[in-house]
Amino acid sequence: MKIAIAQQDYIIGDFQGNFQKITQAIDQAFLSELDLIVFPEMAICGYPSNDLLYYSSYIDSAIDSVNKITEYAKNKIAIIIGGVHRSNHSGASLLYNAAYFITNGEVQIIQKNLHTNANDDFRYFNTEENHSLIYFEGKTISIQIGEINNSILEKNLSEIDLIINLTSISYAHDLIELQQNRILQLAEQFQVPIIHCNSSGAQGEIVLKGGSFICNSQGQLVLEMKYFKEDFAHFDINNIEESIVIESQIISNQISFIHQALISGIKDFFTKSGFKKAVLGLSGGVDSALVLALAAEALGAENVLSVLMPSQYSSGHSIDDSLALVKNLGSAHIIIPIQSTYNNFEENLSPHFIGLAPNVTEENLQARIRGVYLMALSNKFGNILLNTSNKSEAAVGYGTLYGDLCGAIGVIGDLYKTQVYELCRYINRDGEIIPENIITKAPSAELRPEQKDSDSLPEYEILDAILYQHIEQNKSLLEISELGYDKELTTRILKLVQNAEFKRYQAAPSIKVSSRGFGSDRRIPLVKKGL
Amino acid sequence: MKIAIAQQDYIIGDFQGNFQKITQAIDQAFLSELDLIVFPEMAICGYPSNDLLYYSSYIDSAIDSVNKITEYAKNKIAIIIGGVHRSNHSGASLLYNAAYFITNGEVQIIQKNLHTNANDDFRYFNTEENHSLIYFEGKTISIQIGEINNSILEKNLSEIDLIINLTSISYAHDLIELQQNRILQLAEQFQVPIIHCNSSGAQGEIVLKGGSFICNSQGQLVLEMKYFKEDFAHFDINNIEESIVIESQIISNQISFIHQALISGIKDFFTKSGFKKAVLGLSGGVDSALVLALAAEALGAENVLSVLMPSQYSSGHSIDDSLALVKNLGSAHIIIPIQSTYNNFEENLSPHFIGLAPNVTEENLQARIRGVYLMALSNKFGNILLNTSNKSEAAVGYGTLYGDLCGAIGVIGDLYKTQVYELCRYINRDGEIIPENIITKAPSAELRPEQKDSDSLPEYEILDAILYQHIEQNKSLLEISELGYDKELTTRILKLVQNAEFKRYQAAPSIKVSSRGFGSDRRIPLVKKGL
Repeated sequence: MKIAIAQQDYIIGDFQGNFQKITQAIDQAFLSELDLIVFPEMAICGYPSNDLLYYSSYIDSAIDSVNKITEYAKNKIAIIIGGVHRSNHSGASLLYNAAYFITNGEVQIIQKNLHTNANDDFRYFNTEENHSLIYFEGKTISIQIGEINNSILEKNLSEIDLIINLTSISYAHDLIELQQNRILQLAEQFQVPIIHCNSSGAQGEIVLKGGSFICNSQGQLVLEMKYFKEDFAHFDINNIEESIVIESQIISNQISFIHQALISGIKDFFTKSGFKKAVLGLSGGVDSALVLALAAEALGAENVLSVLMPSQYSSGHSIDDSLALVKNLGSAHIIIPIQSTYNNFEENLSPHFIGLAPNVTEENLQARIRGVYLMALSNKFGNILLNTSNKSEAAVGYGTLYGDLCGAIGVIGDLYKTQVYELCRYINRDGEIIPENIITKAPSAELRPEQKDSDSLPEYEILDAILYQHIEQNKSLLEISELGYDKELTTRILKLVQNAEFKRYQAAPSIKVSSRGFGSDRRIPLVKKGL
Repeated sequence: MKIAIAQQDYIIGDFQGNFQKITQAIDQAFLSELDLIVFPEMAICGYPSNDLLYYSSYIDSAIDSVNKITEYAKNKIAIIIGGVHRSNHSGASLLYNAAYFITNGEVQIIQKNLHTNANDDFRYFNTEENHSLIYFEGKTISIQIGEINNSILEKNLSEIDLIINLTSISYAHDLIELQQNRILQLAEQFQVPIIHCNSSGAQGEIVLKGGSFICNSQGQLVLEMKYFKEDFAHFDINNIEESIVIESQIISNQISFIHQALISGIKDFFTKSGFKKAVLGLSGGVDSALVLALAAEALGAENVLSVLMPSQYSSGHSIDDSLALVKNLGSAHIIIPIQSTYNNFEENLSPHFIGLAPNVTEENLQARIRGVYLMALSNKFGNILLNTSNKSEAAVGYGTLYGDLCGAIGVIGDLYKTQVYELCRYINRDGEIIPENIITKAPSAELRPEQKDSDSLPEYEILDAILYQHIEQNKSLLEISELGYDKELTTRILKLVQNAEFKRYQAAPSIKVSSRGFGSDRRIPLVKKGL
């Protein structure tokens, strides 16, 4: 039994475009004389569709698309594809995340019977225990959507020859290996081969991992597809136990995966939104340098405009380093000094600020003036503003709302500062792209004379370790200090995290590469008493 | 059997403060020689706690609090109170939204067995079918948390003497009457009296409705408590069928309820965050005028600073009308003309804008300059910036990101423009507070010469009707045009709604008064093809 895996990248709600993509893969599989083609979870609609699923017109379009695919594939090939299913139970219309098994015009529907918290599936879909089984070419196949449901497998184990697992799992550097291992272990445990078919491509903040694979009944990989890209492969499942075992691409590949995920995230944000060009503020610091390097790679250096906006507090090397970087990349830049604008604001505010000492107000003012310039350029030229904040800053509120937190999409907002440095080194792996001085100098916001990040924050290695425990690991002050971190420092950092919640409510959305990016992954009440 | 209802307002995560509030009500009920006191859903923690529930230290504190309450109430009174419950099932720790029934140190736990989509309960809590019954003073009582579960009632109906319904329902003007009626109908259907105990007070964007009540076994109200405020009442349930039937406060009370909800929303946002003073931009238009009037009522006129920022496009009446309003209220104002700042930006941008005609860039620039001034004043004085955008504008993207969309909390962001006018009239019900000219003049953003909202938008009556169908009623273009609205106009409006998604991702959070406020009520993918 020859099975194709169509690892595709869909646009949410683009039923016509997705239909075309699906039928192209059907044609390809048909021409290769295969028996069955497998598509990912929610291939019909794109995933996650979120509240678009509340529109009955959206569901109608999705079901219509399945009917057209059924018609199209007649006398060509059998199909397993993810979509939505609507069924009526005593008057109420219930929605399911479902797989359609289509053979020559006949359709069998398997409903997803286990929800995880990913993308709020529970908000939209009902669950229903079902045996999950289909019968095809003398084989009994269990179709599992999303996370594989052990208990259903256990009930039907003696019958099952093959598990086909449709997913649309998004990338998280701290989960991807676990996710693959879990599936390999299930194959071994149940002694059944598994086909894992996942979609690729970014959907706004999330990046679907791609990386579909097939493992044999000992839980060994025999096929692994590209990560973060579309791919097409086929495999004769009857020969699986004799097939050569391969190594996973995941192992020790973290930073290159993060790199690929971000490139996919940038690229798809632009192409799927219909934009080509980006703009960003280039400060001379490591964050904006990394964002520029990534954007130039994803969009072409000619499509990224850098704006240098020195103030009275900018050091000479900030401009020099920035110029060296744009020269390395061959991308355009403009320089707009902000001092006269700053002076104008100061002048107009001074009658109201009499007797009040300079404080964070004046620092924020500089950041916000830069935000206004960037947005004016974005509006005028149609270049999309990239946000350059990192996760460490976002966590402790070291950034100015409506200033450096502006942007249509954050590129490195889910990277801790230590990961920012690691990725810079990776970008420079074959030669200097990001000037060495940008990477090695002490980080500074340059919003007051001689300011350094280390004036108000601990070293990033320590900061990031504490943040990781609190944010990714849900650890409290007590638990973190029990791990050996200074209690006073930890108290101060957790307080900063808590007090910056209002900023994160309005910060630019960011490409997610971890299991707990800010945004919909971490939902903290706006008003509360801290942990 | 004399039962107290403690309708209280909690701070999320303030276990100590909530404990004190709870024990005060226990004392009050004990002194009144009552038998049982009922507290709302999640009284222990405050609701919704959201991802704070992922912290095991948070759950520990909640359980500790129940233990302290159990100890405190010994030999005083029986208690039914909402909180979290953690139980271990084959190694996994499962969390439940639960009610604790506490009598003299004995604790019985009833788990919530039905989730709705409200506040993502399904993200945190497991469900478990349970009979929901407790036995107290010779009566069989069904405890129902959140929405009342018909099927459980049907199973145990013959036994049940009383239903006690613990909730923390947030206010929505389009649901509140339905919610009460549904409970009254269930009482009548099952011929069982119901005690509905809801919390009050705002939690960030949401406003808990208060409005606890008791109905008899014919579904008639015999007690109804205050809306949007804390309240305490007690009732001898043995006399319920002889008690006088009362009218609901809800009937025909919509605009006064919206008014009270917004006042509660503003007040609690400030007091629970530890702030006292507000600042806002006063444009001379109806939106900012209404926000000022509401803020002055909620916080005291002396605590609200208005900032008038005229530009070259501001009409004379904008300043005059604004001055008349602050005079009516007796609140402070300052005037900062923005023209010199605008000229400075223009000058610095002009080398880069050569040959490019003025467009939306220059309009946004004015709005963003105002945002920068407001945030500078907010930073310097510690006044919290109130956002003044309405729901019609937010829907169609008629507002500037990082400009007039700035603010820590939006006051009227869940009111359509037609509701804004209605509320202005209500504010003026006993005499002019908002000058008549502000209400009657044609709305304008005043960002270019002679600009009027009606240049680019239809009349608000039509716009709001179409938006309501699309946003609250999930209707598609086809369905809306079938209702008789112009298809071309509807197409244009839905396109505007779709294209403004990126703005709503970063706009100020807003106090919610409908069933579908922007924010967590409406989750549309950032990148997608439109409906």
